[in-house]
Amino acid sequence: MSDASGFPKLTAQEAAETIHHGDVIGASGFTLSGYPKAVPVALAQRAREFHDRGEPFQVAVYTGASAGEEMDGELARARAISRRYPYQSHPDLRSAINDGSIEFVDFHLSHMAQYVRAGFLPRPTVALVEAVDVTPEGHIYLSTSGGSSASYLQMADRIIIEINRFYGDGLKGYHDVFIPAPPPGRQEIPVFRVSDRIGQPFVAVPRDRIAGIVETEAQDSTRPFKEPDATARAIAGHIVEFLKHEHRQGRLPDGLPFQSGVGNVANAVLAAIATEPSMSAISLYTEVIQDSLFQLADNDRLLFASGTAITLSPMAQIRFRRELELFRSRVILRQQEISNHPELVRRLGVVAMNTALEMDIFGNVNSTHVLGSSMMNGIGGSADFTRNAYLPIFMTPSTQKGGRISAVVPMVTHVDHSEHSTKIFVTEQGLADVRGLAPVARARRIIDQCAHPDYRPLLIEYLEYGLRHAPARHTPHVLDRAFEFHIRYRETGTMRV
Amino acid sequence: MSDASGFPKLTAQEAAETIHHGDVIGASGFTLSGYPKAVPVALAQRAREFHDRGEPFQVAVYTGASAGEEMDGELARARAISRRYPYQSHPDLRSAINDGSIEFVDFHLSHMAQYVRAGFLPRPTVALVEAVDVTPEGHIYLSTSGGSSASYLQMADRIIIEINRFYGDGLKGYHDVFIPAPPPGRQEIPVFRVSDRIGQPFVAVPRDRIAGIVETEAQDSTRPFKEPDATARAIAGHIVEFLKHEHRQGRLPDGLPFQSGVGNVANAVLAAIATEPSMSAISLYTEVIQDSLFQLADNDRLLFASGTAITLSPMAQIRFRRELELFRSRVILRQQEISNHPELVRRLGVVAMNTALEMDIFGNVNSTHVLGSSMMNGIGGSADFTRNAYLPIFMTPSTQKGGRISAVVPMVTHVDHSEHSTKIFVTEQGLADVRGLAPVARARRIIDQCAHPDYRPLLIEYLEYGLRHAPARHTPHVLDRAFEFHIRYRETGTMRV
Repeated sequence: MSDASGFPKLTAQEAAETIHHGDVIGASGFTLSGYPKAVPVALAQRAREFHDRGEPFQVAVYTGASAGEEMDGELARARAISRRYPYQSHPDLRSAINDGSIEFVDFHLSHMAQYVRAGFLPRPTVALVEAVDVTPEGHIYLSTSGGSSASYLQMADRIIIEINRFYGDGLKGYHDVFIPAPPPGRQEIPVFRVSDRIGQPFVAVPRDRIAGIVETEAQDSTRPFKEPDATARAIAGHIVEFLKHEHRQGRLPDGLPFQSGVGNVANAVLAAIATEPSMSAISLYTEVIQDSLFQLADNDRLLFASGTAITLSPMAQIRFRRELELFRSRVILRQQEISNHPELVRRLGVVAMNTALEMDIFGNVNSTHVLGSSMMNGIGGSADFTRNAYLPIFMTPSTQKGGRISAVVPMVTHVDHSEHSTKIFVTEQGLADVRGLAPVARARRIIDQCAHPDYRPLLIEYLEYGLRHAPARHTPHVLDRAFEFHIRYRETGTMRV
Repeated sequence: MSDASGFPKLTAQEAAETIHHGDVIGASGFTLSGYPKAVPVALAQRAREFHDRGEPFQVAVYTGASAGEEMDGELARARAISRRYPYQSHPDLRSAINDGSIEFVDFHLSHMAQYVRAGFLPRPTVALVEAVDVTPEGHIYLSTSGGSSASYLQMADRIIIEINRFYGDGLKGYHDVFIPAPPPGRQEIPVFRVSDRIGQPFVAVPRDRIAGIVETEAQDSTRPFKEPDATARAIAGHIVEFLKHEHRQGRLPDGLPFQSGVGNVANAVLAAIATEPSMSAISLYTEVIQDSLFQLADNDRLLFASGTAITLSPMAQIRFRRELELFRSRVILRQQEISNHPELVRRLGVVAMNTALEMDIFGNVNSTHVLGSSMMNGIGGSADFTRNAYLPIFMTPSTQKGGRISAVVPMVTHVDHSEHSTKIFVTEQGLADVRGLAPVARARRIIDQCAHPDYRPLLIEYLEYGLRHAPARHTPHVLDRAFEFHIRYRETGTMRV
């Protein structure tokens, strides 16, 4: 650890006192990894003190993606956030968004940094990032996530750095920091292989903008690893069979990297790839590297992993800390603008696997809104990958809440991925390959392969009714019935009749 | 004109006889330009003869985008098409799609060629392309559109070429033909300026696959140019004011190229740029180059135009033929995979301007479906550009059908561009800049700036009702009321109460 004594060492409380009502904080943090853990708690306390005195205290918060309890939870409960961009997953923050007290702006993660740099969003006044080290010349070595930290650090007036000692020096060298030049005149992003390094292992900032350093030693407060259940294993099995079939047909060249969304089903798919005897080792060009990293490595199936965050269960963080040297040559952490960049996703030929909240019979996917209204987490990078993928796959269990909710519905209540972009759908029931199919043929295949048997007759009835009564048979929707599954659920507690 | 006598010269009828029931035709043609004009007419006749004998005769048709009357009209009326990809605009073809007799697969134009090459769609058995010349060694010089012709020509068993003498040799050199290598191992697409040439001016094919040549001399059957009406001029005015404002604010760097959709409003915007005293010359990195090319050039506002098609009114085609030498150094026609490529749209920083069919208060855009059901034309390249643009703009008149249809609705009946991707909305009423706004704030601004005054109270009432009754206030939709505008229109003939 280099001597950082050139910068003021602050307590979390002292650092929080440099942040004021109306500030725009550009923070590190991506899917519960690498977010600041001490200053936000003190900032929440500061906000409460203002509020107790009847004075306003709210800040806008930009991050990479979702931050942990110490940040998103604390600040949300303290009512310290006015606006939050561009992704979140904390229950208390989600509640505040859905009761209308926090404005949440949910957009494609690959755009966040460019939009900030272009001046399309208010400039961050404070950058608050977690790092493992900062050198006297102002080289900041980020911790477990890249996010959009480099751009926030570049633009903010004042920089507060939390130096987290948990991983120590060992994380140095994992990051590859590259900020594209603004157009016009931008050159190519020179990543041609998943493992290509194109930038520097640190973010360089003018040292006089570093207002202070706060020391911590804490794990990312992630969720424990859960073994995949039977449903997740069934979904994974269908996907592995499909990948093998596509490979045999010559439609899936060797060496295409995989992107995999966050969560149990995604983990199960990578676990299935790791243990399937007839598959070969893979690369990940993904957003979030999860516990499946180890499963792939332990089964000799990992070529390389590129992401913007490494989000590991508490147990896996301990292992990662022990094996930092071992994985250094096989893992890169990039800024999310690069991990999710359309140029690279298209060039590399990424096979994208993301989780749907619900899908409709015509192939539109909802990733964000429950009943068209309540924000779940956000679109994240799912469209960055889906829209540009070599082959996009959406997966979800066919039902939720003990069968009372069908994941396959007549019309999704919010579209995050349109029928034009989606190709492969998977539930534990089966896999629907709708490449090259028109909407009605697509509907028959999705109902047949993906819907739960309890809901198939209802979906077929809707389709047949539409073919008789809709204004047209291209996409035979009947608008006064399109949301009948959802309305029934709200009225009776189940989508079943 | 080189001597093409090495290849069999066929009549259109002879050429049509080499095409059989079940063939998959990969055709040239993009927004009414550069499509085959003689063989499709003969093929339609051949299909009718089969049908008269009670025998089946249908082919699948891939194109660049929409073809003209002689192809899409003739083949649709002859019921000669089984499936059609990926865009169309002919009334008879549209009718057949909407009555369910033709399967239409509508997807992002930038993906078409790659999906065909990857084997995700059935391989074209016949390539049928319009060209201005073919050399004895098999170098094909395409006519007024690039489309996906190079990939179809590369993959088809048999090639039929219509040599259209209308433009003569003068069009040679306009095209820049480049097909990216398949991933993995793909390099960058080396376009760094709008004017960069990266390929060859012809498509090279093995000469033994050229089954024959059919000679024609005919204009593209495009639509006459219409002077922009007051509504289009008002929309254009708002956009020009906005661009000037953004430039003054330092948020719109000099030299960003423009993409502009097809149609009168798009033409009006470019005309307004051409005649606005305080604007400087622009480049187009677009899909379709239209009559506004001349307006820009005549006003000394054209730096360069890159597209995949040059679709001119009948009068403008005559002028273009006369001035082919003059425009050769300022126009490139590319394959649509390159004109619309996400890598290039993002790198070049394209300002994208596309027409919405309808938009909803939360910022979702419908470009394709009337009442959620009837296909209009298709998504085309609008999402290729919108999704990757430096700044995406959607425009539309605030009402249609004499005010009986509002372009701003509570919820669009089909989403082609999600709230996550859209930023700027324009109608003749005004311009709504919703960058950085959460859904409810977005709704207030869109209603206020873009909705027709007749519909504003209805939209505000829906929003306020939702804020009281929706399951959540993030996106306060009320599902049993979301389509009430559309249902009222269907029942009463107007969206007004």
